[in-house]
Amino acid sequence: MSAPTDHSANPIQTQPTPLGDVSDSPPKSDGFVWQRKHLLGLEDLSCEELLHIFHTAESFQEVSTRSVKKVPALRGKVVVNLFFEDSTRTRMSFTLAAQRLSADVLDFSATKSSISKGESLRDTARNIEAMGVDTFVIRHSAAGAPHRLAQYTDCNVINAGDGQHEHPTQGLIDIFTMRERKGRIKGLNVAIVGDIAHSRVARSNFWGLSRLGANVTFVGPTTLVPRAFKDMGVKISHNLDEVLRYADVVNMLRIQHERISGQVFPSTQEYVGLFGLTRQRLKKAKPDLLVMHPGPINRGVELASDVADGPNSSILRQVSNGLAIRMAVLFLLSQASSA
Amino acid sequence: MSAPTDHSANPIQTQPTPLGDVSDSPPKSDGFVWQRKHLLGLEDLSCEELLHIFHTAESFQEVSTRSVKKVPALRGKVVVNLFFEDSTRTRMSFTLAAQRLSADVLDFSATKSSISKGESLRDTARNIEAMGVDTFVIRHSAAGAPHRLAQYTDCNVINAGDGQHEHPTQGLIDIFTMRERKGRIKGLNVAIVGDIAHSRVARSNFWGLSRLGANVTFVGPTTLVPRAFKDMGVKISHNLDEVLRYADVVNMLRIQHERISGQVFPSTQEYVGLFGLTRQRLKKAKPDLLVMHPGPINRGVELASDVADGPNSSILRQVSNGLAIRMAVLFLLSQASSA
Amino acid sequence: MSAPTDHSANPIQTQPTPLGDVSDSPPKSDGFVWQRKHLLGLEDLSCEELLHIFHTAESFQEVSTRSVKKVPALRGKVVVNLFFEDSTRTRMSFTLAAQRLSADVLDFSATKSSISKGESLRDTARNIEAMGVDTFVIRHSAAGAPHRLAQYTDCNVINAGDGQHEHPTQGLIDIFTMRERKGRIKGLNVAIVGDIAHSRVARSNFWGLSRLGANVTFVGPTTLVPRAFKDMGVKISHNLDEVLRYADVVNMLRIQHERISGQVFPSTQEYVGLFGLTRQRLKKAKPDLLVMHPGPINRGVELASDVADGPNSSILRQVSNGLAIRMAVLFLLSQASSA
Repeated sequence: MSAPTDHSANPIQTQPTPLGDVSDSPPKSDGFVWQRKHLLGLEDLSCEELLHIFHTAESFQEVSTRSVKKVPALRGKVVVNLFFEDSTRTRMSFTLAAQRLSADVLDFSATKSSISKGESLRDTARNIEAMGVDTFVIRHSAAGAPHRLAQYTDCNVINAGDGQHEHPTQGLIDIFTMRERKGRIKGLNVAIVGDIAHSRVARSNFWGLSRLGANVTFVGPTTLVPRAFKDMGVKISHNLDEVLRYADVVNMLRIQHERISGQVFPSTQEYVGLFGLTRQRLKKAKPDLLVMHPGPINRGVELASDVADGPNSSILRQVSNGLAIRMAVLFLLSQASSA
Repeated sequence: MSAPTDHSANPIQTQPTPLGDVSDSPPKSDGFVWQRKHLLGLEDLSCEELLHIFHTAESFQEVSTRSVKKVPALRGKVVVNLFFEDSTRTRMSFTLAAQRLSADVLDFSATKSSISKGESLRDTARNIEAMGVDTFVIRHSAAGAPHRLAQYTDCNVINAGDGQHEHPTQGLIDIFTMRERKGRIKGLNVAIVGDIAHSRVARSNFWGLSRLGANVTFVGPTTLVPRAFKDMGVKISHNLDEVLRYADVVNMLRIQHERISGQVFPSTQEYVGLFGLTRQRLKKAKPDLLVMHPGPINRGVELASDVADGPNSSILRQVSNGLAIRMAVLFLLSQASSA
Repeated sequence: MSAPTDHSANPIQTQPTPLGDVSDSPPKSDGFVWQRKHLLGLEDLSCEELLHIFHTAESFQEVSTRSVKKVPALRGKVVVNLFFEDSTRTRMSFTLAAQRLSADVLDFSATKSSISKGESLRDTARNIEAMGVDTFVIRHSAAGAPHRLAQYTDCNVINAGDGQHEHPTQGLIDIFTMRERKGRIKGLNVAIVGDIAHSRVARSNFWGLSRLGANVTFVGPTTLVPRAFKDMGVKISHNLDEVLRYADVVNMLRIQHERISGQVFPSTQEYVGLFGLTRQRLKKAKPDLLVMHPGPINRGVELASDVADGPNSSILRQVSNGLAIRMAVLFLLSQASSA
């Protein structure tokens, strides 16, 4: 039996014990048995399910700090990115998460494929499934597309953003990061600021946060935060300064330039004056206000550069946590389907 | 001897024993300790550093001849190709090199990404870094972009071509191949022929070659070899026939069609007549003249087909050596960062 | 402690321990020794070669049903998809097949590459080969391109569709699926229906099927089934209803919309009336008629939706078998080249 090898000293030797420096402890168990095969939205998730994802993500956080950032949990499984809308960043995050679990990843480019020849989502999905893949990560401009996909396939389905409906992994990332930084969710005052009307991130944040007992306020101009949202049970405000006085967390949404230059708001300058988070405005908030942003940032619009890079910001931590959350979701769903 | 492991019961434990048939010998040691985290250009590299890269590349050359062309040196590491200019060939070479070291590779397509939504290089880099990647391979139309990237990130940075500045791995490949074929660099007469003014390959060749004691001559029409290059300490000639009489090596650069059809030179025909390497012209050179080209070739322009495919040519050997050089650079930089 | 394993002798055995739940049985042997380095078409293949591919594919079918769908047969090998025509589905199938054999896969996008700068197929192939790759999977609009590639390179070459010539792996998939469902090929009456004139699938089906003793009939309008095909030794019919009375299998080809809306046929409606396989028309056929389609389907044109999804259809099984066939071909060619 050979002694443990120091790979750094000997780069072209192959692995005797591939990932030698890895703890053998299984993920922390919270006694909960995961049973869901798909993650389509946070609206339906129970407290126990949300917390179980977080516990699993905590176990996976450590993996990304290892020298060999890989575990064999999904070896031999295939994850297909089925992106009907471009999103380099979300796709990269899912790809890295899947690779870190040793899965193979395939990108299915909807624009170059049979889809553009008129093939239906159902035929596309069932054909790819017949090639023996395991998980679909789907982004689509139509709300509900992931739900339809889940009806067509026996594979796991993860909603990576559907229309203006939900973006559940981003919601999980945001809530997980709040919990990490604040130590709790229950009782937290969370303001979500910006173009709520068109934001799937706002909706996913709201469902998860309210399930876990946070007080959520949607903040923005009347054109971007319609009063209809009150029916969801959320508080609404059109005055950021007022909300900042008591908020524990602000989640600043990316604002599309076209919406604030005439379409639903007169000008970018006026938007920044009322709803941009500047250092000046930050002074009115609690000193430990947590500043979040799902990215990519419009520096100088919804968020001033010095605030984005300042001590209150958790923006890059959200990106890092994205890997752990997506590893947890990929892993948990695969366990449910094999059960 | 441990019992067979049930991975499904313990998803975050790693695999015991993968590649059986691989030699255990470490790369030849030259006693030098590599400390550089980035490879931004050859201008700053010492003799010792250049030679250490070559020694490491020699160790890796053997890997590509194995039946299983893979070593675990970078297992669990992630290499990101951050290409702001298209270059299928360079990207493939880096990708294969990284895979051969067992790294995962992600392509970041700058045109499809947030970059096109106005995100800065700094935000892009720091976001990707936050996902837990290890090495950026960057190609950019702006000279100095890799240097800025290196300031923004803790990852390793490899310049895969920046504007008209440097393309250090191509320089290393060329010099490594000269050394392999000629047995030495010191005292070699090396002519670099063509569009020097716009060539990062010419610059990287010059810095590395002159550091190691070769005599470099830039050859081409006055419009493409400005006299200002004399300040770098290089010899300049506008007469290829003259230089061929004493050259040991010619490195023929690819010439852009648009430059020799009116822009800086009257016509392709005249260019070929003066600076194209034909079989006829080759007769005036030393019989063992080494003919190089960084590819892709314009057959019949800078290089005649029979010369490109003839016994003096090392063109395909350069491509093969590209893998070994890029494996060496990826490996060495990763060692420095973990130190 | 087990002795070092000779993987080459036992290609689908997994590495000593990494994948714990994998059977150790080698592929079923039929005593035949494979010697072909390239798969360019089915026209040249002998009965023995066809059957040996099928036997090997049967061994690999089981792999795709495992929990860990991966064997180390091509570990450390590199497969390059050299697609000069887009085909998401065929490319995905080859990619998954190669990954399932543990090969690394690189996509070479012909449009973005040096090809668009005028580089020849020969230079492209020899440059990629010099990077140390093992297999080219080529799709090209020019008939014969894969044959030329095979002359330029020492790598294995697989034709993934060349012009209107052949698409041998699709032919193998179709014949393998017929054999699986019908228990034999000899004596089967197989009708191939649609745009025969432009179909490489029809040609590959014909060569393989007739070699194995099936009776092949090409069916379609006179403009799409020229009488010249009789020279190949195939039967020709312009009356689907007549052929359906005795056919054991119908392989319905995808029809391009532009061909049946004026170019070579008056209208889609008339095409469907004469050559579309509807439930009504199916009643005239044998009850156990096997309905095939190489995909992607134009539902309601060559194939009615309820027929495509009905009990006679083997369409998704063809897709699944595609993985096994392509694994078998990738594996067999690699064995020949290492011999």
